[in-house]
Amino acid sequence: MDAGHRSGCPINLTLELMGDRWSLLVIRDVMFGNRRHFRTLLTQSEEAIASNILADRLKRLVAAGLLSRVDDPSHRQKAIYSLTEPAIQLVPLLAQMAAWGRRHTQASPLLSLRARMLEDGGPPLWADFMAELRHVHLGAPPPTRSVMAEFAVGLAAHQAGSGASRA
Amino acid sequence: MDAGHRSGCPINLTLELMGDRWSLLVIRDVMFGNRRHFRTLLTQSEEAIASNILADRLKRLVAAGLLSRVDDPSHRQKAIYSLTEPAIQLVPLLAQMAAWGRRHTQASPLLSLRARMLEDGGPPLWADFMAELRHVHLGAPPPTRSVMAEFAVGLAAHQAGSGASRA
Repeated sequence: MDAGHRSGCPINLTLELMGDRWSLLVIRDVMFGNRRHFRTLLTQSEEAIASNILADRLKRLVAAGLLSRVDDPSHRQKAIYSLTEPAIQLVPLLAQMAAWGRRHTQASPLLSLRARMLEDGGPPLWADFMAELRHVHLGAPPPTRSVMAEFAVGLAAHQAGSGASRA
Repeated sequence: MDAGHRSGCPINLTLELMGDRWSLLVIRDVMFGNRRHFRTLLTQSEEAIASNILADRLKRLVAAGLLSRVDDPSHRQKAIYSLTEPAIQLVPLLAQMAAWGRRHTQASPLLSLRARMLEDGGPPLWADFMAELRHVHLGAPPPTRSVMAEFAVGLAAHQAGSGASRA
């Protein structure tokens, strides 16, 4: 962490807890990509995260109470990571960050699609997505709506559309 | 910046543009504290930002198109910083970050008050605050509602209440 006094500002404390951009990118991949193992997070990383950075950020996120880590009973020597309730409550923040990035950076159309779906759906969709994440990560009852399935359908339609327009 | 491939993800590109936590803290101080000069940003910093870090982040934010810098006609050798339209559009992101921090960190009651007002007011208050920022920073017509005044009144009432309860 950079030098400087602690302050009680909630924006500052959130940024301190996150540390650097890699922490939020790991949470993004666990949340939207449902990548739950070290190896999947490493090999499927869009940003090609380095192995030592990933190991460090996973450790920090567990220590900060944003991820939980349990041994995967189906694999020896494998841990499975889950979002905690505070991490699930980052959905509105990530939705706003994605919406801003879609407007003000050179984001790719495919990767911006989920940002647009989050933005179009607004707080009701965020709430349904959080309910689904509580089911997947915390064992809450299954929700009636699957926002993850909607994302997958939207991405597939976009890819089919791009394919058709290239043909 | 850390090593790693560029990716077209809007969340990643937003985080890359911000750089580190100090950039967003500087934007916060320009936005909510209306601190427009180097010296004010330095001496009033809740986090006691170092002079060299502040100078670097101001330069980066101007280069990234999030702040604009003009010479202040009333002071020789002084520059005045203003938010740009993309920076003003960070209001919803900062509001969500403050709301998350108020719930999940040990934020101080006084500094959490603005977070609560942002949260209670929701998107209509954010829109009115952005309209006011466009007036203050971009020369747009004055808005009918001053959210800054509402923040100031709320903070004063809170401080008066704390004072009374200590008496």
